[in-house]
Amino acid sequence: MENAVLITIGDEILSGNTIDTNSNFIATELKNIGIKVSQIFTISDEIETIKDTLHAAFEIGDLVITTGGLGPTRDDKTKKALADFFNDEIALDEPTFEHLKKYMEKRGRLEILERNREQAFVPAKSTVFQNQYGTAPCMMMKYGDKLSFSLPGVPYEVKPLIKDQIIPYLKNTFSLQYITTRIVSVVGIPESILADIIEDWELSLPENLALSYLPVGTRVKLRLTASGHDENILNRQLEEEIQKLFPLVGENIIATTEDKIEKILGELLGEKKLTLSTAESCTGGELAKMITSNSGSSKYFIGGIVPYATEKKVEILKVSQSTVDEFTVVSEQVAEEMAKGCQRLFDTDISISTTGVAGPGKGEDGKDVGTVFYTIRIHDQAQNFKLYMPHLERLDFMNFVSQKIIQDLVSLLVNN
Amino acid sequence: MENAVLITIGDEILSGNTIDTNSNFIATELKNIGIKVSQIFTISDEIETIKDTLHAAFEIGDLVITTGGLGPTRDDKTKKALADFFNDEIALDEPTFEHLKKYMEKRGRLEILERNREQAFVPAKSTVFQNQYGTAPCMMMKYGDKLSFSLPGVPYEVKPLIKDQIIPYLKNTFSLQYITTRIVSVVGIPESILADIIEDWELSLPENLALSYLPVGTRVKLRLTASGHDENILNRQLEEEIQKLFPLVGENIIATTEDKIEKILGELLGEKKLTLSTAESCTGGELAKMITSNSGSSKYFIGGIVPYATEKKVEILKVSQSTVDEFTVVSEQVAEEMAKGCQRLFDTDISISTTGVAGPGKGEDGKDVGTVFYTIRIHDQAQNFKLYMPHLERLDFMNFVSQKIIQDLVSLLVNN
Repeated sequence: MENAVLITIGDEILSGNTIDTNSNFIATELKNIGIKVSQIFTISDEIETIKDTLHAAFEIGDLVITTGGLGPTRDDKTKKALADFFNDEIALDEPTFEHLKKYMEKRGRLEILERNREQAFVPAKSTVFQNQYGTAPCMMMKYGDKLSFSLPGVPYEVKPLIKDQIIPYLKNTFSLQYITTRIVSVVGIPESILADIIEDWELSLPENLALSYLPVGTRVKLRLTASGHDENILNRQLEEEIQKLFPLVGENIIATTEDKIEKILGELLGEKKLTLSTAESCTGGELAKMITSNSGSSKYFIGGIVPYATEKKVEILKVSQSTVDEFTVVSEQVAEEMAKGCQRLFDTDISISTTGVAGPGKGEDGKDVGTVFYTIRIHDQAQNFKLYMPHLERLDFMNFVSQKIIQDLVSLLVNN
Repeated sequence: MENAVLITIGDEILSGNTIDTNSNFIATELKNIGIKVSQIFTISDEIETIKDTLHAAFEIGDLVITTGGLGPTRDDKTKKALADFFNDEIALDEPTFEHLKKYMEKRGRLEILERNREQAFVPAKSTVFQNQYGTAPCMMMKYGDKLSFSLPGVPYEVKPLIKDQIIPYLKNTFSLQYITTRIVSVVGIPESILADIIEDWELSLPENLALSYLPVGTRVKLRLTASGHDENILNRQLEEEIQKLFPLVGENIIATTEDKIEKILGELLGEKKLTLSTAESCTGGELAKMITSNSGSSKYFIGGIVPYATEKKVEILKVSQSTVDEFTVVSEQVAEEMAKGCQRLFDTDISISTTGVAGPGKGEDGKDVGTVFYTIRIHDQAQNFKLYMPHLERLDFMNFVSQKIIQDLVSLLVNN
């Protein structure tokens, strides 16, 4: 059991209506037990296409996981395709029907519709993994030595099925290789220059280690993956190789254990026992959300404010009206006063403020779309920054700016 | 030019490190000019795999768009695969090199590294579309009557290349069918029951109209897509069919023009001239971010606060300490007082508050993970809600709850 292929079924993704987040989740979970995803097929909900793709998938991998195409509505044909492909019949599975009835009862729906009953029909040869958070069951089929699992497409049904049932099943059934990964975050060097600096190091990596470059905003993440049978040896190998990077780019490394920037920040603030608050205009809450998305953030994040209307910046954060009048609301000076007011309002060691034009419409004061000023205030030291990102769409802009600010704060904390 | 196939190249997505957002963007843009994405292949950065997939893709579609595998680092093999597949040579393209030099100069990097120069090498038969936001050019190749475009993988490079160059090129070069889509948002009916109610309507839809069910949280989006040569006829057809839904499920329809819930809310608030503010605890800024992600939200969104620490709820929002002591901070009573304080702080017609336990750790007061209380206050009427979503991960929880709250506010506004 080494290579997996994922098949995402349904027109929602092909039509651009939905972003496929399931594949990402499944790939990560499989990687952790040493199974690599070799390919992902995203296909439409047609019986022939599904069957052809199952063929292609079993050519490539030992394990095939399909998501989607199992809803109660008429555009779902996965089950029929599965039965055809495996030369099987679809039949009512009693335990699945019992599970379904209980599931519906719990939710106060006592009347079982014909459409719902249909969901308890599965290929007769399948092994069913019951879905605790939805009405479509997960079906496992055998294909010689190979296996397929067919899941519904709803992400919050997929996650527990994978995590609580399929991963444990695979771990118990097969003896799997151990895979371990470390991410080194480097800032302040473009990818191509970084690649030149660490070229010799990269070429001398042991055979069982693989390196990838993952640029995220202005940070480059170096991902080192090691595979083998002894977890301790792998961890030691990774640590040794990472230590060799320090003489080369040590000053630019902001983290070697955590991956997500909000987690890196969380660790640092925890270590240094510092508290944080935010005052956001153009990022509209994204910065606070990113910070609080880290579980445990309540230990250091005291609060945030989104004083969207200019008068609220003046009233609540005590930005002076004359500063607004003189420099406009999208200005370094306003950002600086916002950070000061924010620090006072929430009584924190650190405060961050943003003011800018997220677009697509121009700001009231005529500043260019994509302009943002932000201030990071640590105790009584304020540092002002400006970014200009005219090519990003509104949500991407809010996200990019928030990432960059957290990254800058991390850099300031690491180098102090 | 009717069917497109997308190929996403690179291990970042297969390894679960990156979510593929490019495919979603490209599919949407192509749909708008009447080109349907039939399949998406996500493959690793290996020359043979890329070549095989190009073969498979040209079997299915007239248009093949690849993203990824064009970076300056050593794990990128797309260009080599392209040259092989098209029986071509890779050669330095002078205009591309000139463009690259100017691009680097503008960013203050006067020295052109060998690695960067390599990016100006392209298959000799290709037509280059210059990349304004990165160093990897976009290459168009002809394959009989069919076309391929190869783009870098970075989303903010992909978006302008597609939008500003490839879409206009395709529109100018081919006479394309017109596709138009409407989304009807239905709340308060489970998908399977809705499907029963509208079954006859669905079966009687004209041939050139297609229906899909897209469940998002507790809302079901009905997507109607019409294709044909006369835009006016298509729009009229869609409007007629949508009107027929009103006698069936009219009370549950919250929107028939906008798709995104934050846009639906924006339209309603604009029409009714109402202002809005938010006070968030467990959603941590996600609610404000979702509201402000709608361009033009500054017209109705006055501000938000994330009083994460309990004492800030008391200090800033004037939640009474005795309410916290008696009912704990995660309670209906605290949510209600937060909404009241928020409305006063920002002086708005409507305020929304959230307090809950996002998990994975339990809240201080021992309330179950996944519990959230929220209040929607419209003028002097407060309505309290409770949700229990124990199976969602932290970020999904923040997102689901925010979606649901905006949806509830929309329902309240529609039915008043």
